[in-house]
Amino acid sequence: MKTENRKEEIINISSKLFKEKGYSAVSMRDIAQAMGIKAASLYNHITSKQEILSIIILDVAEKFTRGMDRIVESEDNAIDKLEKIIELHVNVTVNNADALGSLNNDWMHLVEPQLSYFLKLRSQYEENFRQIVKLGVDEGHLEPLNVEVMLFSILSTLRTLYLWYYKKEGVDTAELVVQMKTVLLRGVVLKP
Amino acid sequence: MKTENRKEEIINISSKLFKEKGYSAVSMRDIAQAMGIKAASLYNHITSKQEILSIIILDVAEKFTRGMDRIVESEDNAIDKLEKIIELHVNVTVNNADALGSLNNDWMHLVEPQLSYFLKLRSQYEENFRQIVKLGVDEGHLEPLNVEVMLFSILSTLRTLYLWYYKKEGVDTAELVVQMKTVLLRGVVLKP
Repeated sequence: MKTENRKEEIINISSKLFKEKGYSAVSMRDIAQAMGIKAASLYNHITSKQEILSIIILDVAEKFTRGMDRIVESEDNAIDKLEKIIELHVNVTVNNADALGSLNNDWMHLVEPQLSYFLKLRSQYEENFRQIVKLGVDEGHLEPLNVEVMLFSILSTLRTLYLWYYKKEGVDTAELVVQMKTVLLRGVVLKP
Repeated sequence: MKTENRKEEIINISSKLFKEKGYSAVSMRDIAQAMGIKAASLYNHITSKQEILSIIILDVAEKFTRGMDRIVESEDNAIDKLEKIIELHVNVTVNNADALGSLNNDWMHLVEPQLSYFLKLRSQYEENFRQIVKLGVDEGHLEPLNVEVMLFSILSTLRTLYLWYYKKEGVDTAELVVQMKTVLLRGVVLKP
């Protein structure tokens, strides 16, 4: 097996273990055991458990950032941008469910300089999201409500999606995107 | 100071410490120090850190259950019931912000029989919420969307409210209730 593939395998198996037990409770020995190799062999591919965590978290954080940058740069109006943000979250969540566990629960175990980098990405992401909501209010496409309440209501649901999306039965990803757009933007109350 | 008041003081100070550092990182000695008493004196009022945690979590879990029971028993339609659930969450959150940290992050440190009791309350709560959403769909008041998607979208926002509600500026509790009802039920997109 090529080194690159073996490294990816370490990352994938570690994200599963971190999600199940939490980062602190998993040892390099546990990771080696889950892969059926010796702990010493791990160090041919990776320098530390810390490195694994930062690869897992920063990889998915950068996916969100790249997605958001494309949305911000587009010519869409605020509603279309919000719909694309929802699509971005559903797609990243469905394809990186294990990594999202680390991103949400274990980011505080990152060390510098990765910790500051992660926090910068997160606050830039929130700020971009906030500006889109503000634009929507200013352009008259969104209800004139408190921007922070709208921002964090929508963002809380999107951020915790990884915890519950598997519970929905008989809804595929495309259908989930459609449903989330309605629930988060247009509301669940049926219009007369 | 009366024993009852001293016990309440232990609970209040502990919830703050648990929220700041997490349950596992707080010792009985830390709690005593924060109260300016000797660790040994704590045991006149409380048997263990475990007992403190279960009082904090079960007290707030029972507040949610009692609130939900009243809503379920009422003659309201599904929309009114959902609005009352939102009101319940905002009020319990604003008045028990520290305890909600423990409820969300430290419930897994409960031991039996409190753990099973807590899980029973939580799943009954979700089931009551689910039945109200189903009723809303069946009666034609809610969009015919996937019930789990609607349930967990609304519930995720309500459950994480304690993390961000202090960020909204210039919105008091009553106003927050009004805004959350619009955001979670009627949607943020302005109707033409």
